[in-house]
Amino acid sequence: MTVDPADGRARATQLRETTDTEVAAVVAAARAGGAWLREAGRDGRARTLDQIGASLEARRAELVAVAVAETGLPTARLDLELTRAATQFRMFADVVRDGGYLEAAIDHAGETVLGPAPDVRRMLVPLGPVAVFGASNFPFAFSVAGGDTASALAAGCPVVVKAHPSHPLTSDASYRAIADAIEATGGPAGVIGIVFGQSAGLTLVRDPAVRAATLTGSLHAGRAIQTAINARPEPIPFYAELSSINPVVVLPGAAAARGRQIAEGLFASFTGSGGQLCTKPGLVFVPTGEAGDAVVRHLRALVAAAPGATLLNERIRDGFHTGQELLQRAGARVLATAPAPSSAGFVVAPAVLELELPDLSASVAQECFGPLTIVVRYDDAAGLDQWLPTIPGSLTGSIHADESDDRATVLGIADRLAAQCGRLVFNGYPTGVRVSWAQHHGGPWPSTNSVHTSVGATAIRRFLRPIAWQDAPDWALPPELRNGFDGIPRRVDGQLEVAGHAVAPTA
Amino acid sequence: MTVDPADGRARATQLRETTDTEVAAVVAAARAGGAWLREAGRDGRARTLDQIGASLEARRAELVAVAVAETGLPTARLDLELTRAATQFRMFADVVRDGGYLEAAIDHAGETVLGPAPDVRRMLVPLGPVAVFGASNFPFAFSVAGGDTASALAAGCPVVVKAHPSHPLTSDASYRAIADAIEATGGPAGVIGIVFGQSAGLTLVRDPAVRAATLTGSLHAGRAIQTAINARPEPIPFYAELSSINPVVVLPGAAAARGRQIAEGLFASFTGSGGQLCTKPGLVFVPTGEAGDAVVRHLRALVAAAPGATLLNERIRDGFHTGQELLQRAGARVLATAPAPSSAGFVVAPAVLELELPDLSASVAQECFGPLTIVVRYDDAAGLDQWLPTIPGSLTGSIHADESDDRATVLGIADRLAAQCGRLVFNGYPTGVRVSWAQHHGGPWPSTNSVHTSVGATAIRRFLRPIAWQDAPDWALPPELRNGFDGIPRRVDGQLEVAGHAVAPTA
Repeated sequence: MTVDPADGRARATQLRETTDTEVAAVVAAARAGGAWLREAGRDGRARTLDQIGASLEARRAELVAVAVAETGLPTARLDLELTRAATQFRMFADVVRDGGYLEAAIDHAGETVLGPAPDVRRMLVPLGPVAVFGASNFPFAFSVAGGDTASALAAGCPVVVKAHPSHPLTSDASYRAIADAIEATGGPAGVIGIVFGQSAGLTLVRDPAVRAATLTGSLHAGRAIQTAINARPEPIPFYAELSSINPVVVLPGAAAARGRQIAEGLFASFTGSGGQLCTKPGLVFVPTGEAGDAVVRHLRALVAAAPGATLLNERIRDGFHTGQELLQRAGARVLATAPAPSSAGFVVAPAVLELELPDLSASVAQECFGPLTIVVRYDDAAGLDQWLPTIPGSLTGSIHADESDDRATVLGIADRLAAQCGRLVFNGYPTGVRVSWAQHHGGPWPSTNSVHTSVGATAIRRFLRPIAWQDAPDWALPPELRNGFDGIPRRVDGQLEVAGHAVAPTA
Repeated sequence: MTVDPADGRARATQLRETTDTEVAAVVAAARAGGAWLREAGRDGRARTLDQIGASLEARRAELVAVAVAETGLPTARLDLELTRAATQFRMFADVVRDGGYLEAAIDHAGETVLGPAPDVRRMLVPLGPVAVFGASNFPFAFSVAGGDTASALAAGCPVVVKAHPSHPLTSDASYRAIADAIEATGGPAGVIGIVFGQSAGLTLVRDPAVRAATLTGSLHAGRAIQTAINARPEPIPFYAELSSINPVVVLPGAAAARGRQIAEGLFASFTGSGGQLCTKPGLVFVPTGEAGDAVVRHLRALVAAAPGATLLNERIRDGFHTGQELLQRAGARVLATAPAPSSAGFVVAPAVLELELPDLSASVAQECFGPLTIVVRYDDAAGLDQWLPTIPGSLTGSIHADESDDRATVLGIADRLAAQCGRLVFNGYPTGVRVSWAQHHGGPWPSTNSVHTSVGATAIRRFLRPIAWQDAPDWALPPELRNGFDGIPRRVDGQLEVAGHAVAPTA
């Protein structure tokens, strides 16, 4: 069954829930997939990742069309998201070719203060099959064809994705695009698998052969998966991105210098994609006084004139309304809402709320998924120090500062925000996560339950574990640890060497 | 109270269990310690780590004497272990000075296929206060003055250690040696703290300010700590090294070429330190036939003539006897035991047991802490493939092979062992873990519950999390991410650069 958010109507599909027996078969196939990924080596895996990127691009029209129908997100947004997904696969191809992710290290045998020491060589190896739970809000870039899948395959781990119930057809089409690319580069069917249904997802993470799980989703889904994992005899790592309020602090100088621009930027950031982004700014600190008043005035005007936003599914639409009610009960008042939408589909009215600073607490600073933000006015920027720590851990913290703002105040607020977030944005907006090596998507609980998530080159490390080889003959070592190899960065006797540096054999 | 394992007698000490109020005060002080560690910077922390190494060396006589009395371990072993502990602090000083552990990365702003992209710079920052639970069997190198403490302080995290009840005076003396070194380099009392008592340890990991916990200990202790952590509103990482059987495979060629030497090496490895090492070889595969018979014959003779081994405490002594009984009930038979020891103290007789290959299973391949190993005879080396996967995850796997052994067989067994261990030892013995950059101490469950433990340079990463700075002005960045800085390795626009490479400011 698939539901079109534009009209709220369900339509039948050929897809059905995966049975437990079928889940076991998919996982069994994944083991064979793992053997192939290993034999393919870094070059082979990089080729496959590039091929997946090309396959996604080649099916752009089909994929975007089915995603538009299932998510209600605009075509332009989904078109860019597909490019993002393909780019992620290509970036991880580069990461694999570079080889630095292996963290190869060689300590030669020798005399030490603790006596004669053996030759020790270490690098990272794949964990094994990974279960990937896709997100509702990014049907491509954080779903079947998302960064979790790309980084796990790059690591050499076969992947079994659990399709999101909100976009089963997009999930299936993405899966086929990836599976066909793998087949085209010689890989067996088990390199990627897919299961449908909540029960199948839990069966999947209970399977002894599954070695790690990832989720971009809600605290509720995270708890269900974590409970299933906790019941396993052997624990496995679970990397979840869950909930984020993403505070923004606008300093007085910035408000005075570019108040209208900031209001426009915030509006675009919290209403874009229906406000259904994990990095949506949910809490904005605006100074009292004329400049701050102007920021709020612009924001109200933009919201009052905004069109309705189509949300992804019924649960998210209902959650948006419930969340807004809870905020109002906690003391927030509505500053402006868009005109009430027509009733067809999962359409809601964007809103901006205001909360008094003394009413700010961890329980009210909760993510309300959808096009809503809360303004909090403050008198004294330095005084925010005592309030910022009450906000739950977030993926991001943002600060708008002008040359006229006091640098010590900027640094103080940046420090406070950094203590509670994973990415610190200066004079910008937290939505729009750059795909690049240095990027990083994670933050203190409850925004994520681990330091790594699916964005940035180090996402690959979540699916790897170290092995040390002691006194191994050269022929028994992985190629990357042999004396004559010089294709990747390695740390040799404590010294980092970039590619192009081989080592002499020990006597 | 402290107990001398040599005579089993308890003696009163000044030490008492830490109250909950006192635990809270220690953790509160740790916050201030964290601020100092941060301000000290990498150079300051490296100086403090070197000073701790020097302080431990300066108190060698006192520390070794108190540890001998509390653990029953030989003076020579504890003397070397103290050197090891001091070396670990010095190695982490080098790791901090090198700065590669920060994983600094800079992606300049620019046009990309996804549109204009901001400047993104990433590095790792300390998690916050770390709770360290020391081991019984390494009163220095895996306890208060162990690798967990060294790597956490190196990361910039204050440490609160929970003293092991088996060596409270050694713990206290180690704590004072570290605290004095910190004071000598200008640090406040909160950089390191100590608590005594099981209840205090659980209170410690429940404290909201504690951001990570480590344990080198038993599955039982691991479960108690994990349960306390699971009850926290915010989860924290828990890095535990728990239980390991450490299989050794002796191939026919190696048995023929150097059977006596292998028997002597194995005997030293499984009886050294009373067999109370996490890397003790607990399961040895020996070929049937004359060469294998000779290995077993030598082993029996060495065991039959062995002196009694003094174990660390009553619980471990009783556990050794119970474990041996369980093995015998599971079908293992005693090949040889040392003469029954006199009854004073926690002294036991080393033993070598034999198990038939068809009786091998996960439930019998369990660690029996103490001077005992199990020999399993095999007919066909290639046939071991089906048996090795039944052995639980281990820290190590070892293989003895000679030039005359078939390389394909060696590689096949090495692969099987690698799938279930963290360190693969060729023609050596798993005990004696080298302290060096490439080293690594961890393995699949239940040997550890995470990929990282306290040995090797990457131990530091357990206590760090990434932060990305987006479009930050140079003055708001950590020094290591600024354009002009060239003191550490950095990945710039995807390219790894060693120290000595600065970048130009973005226009």
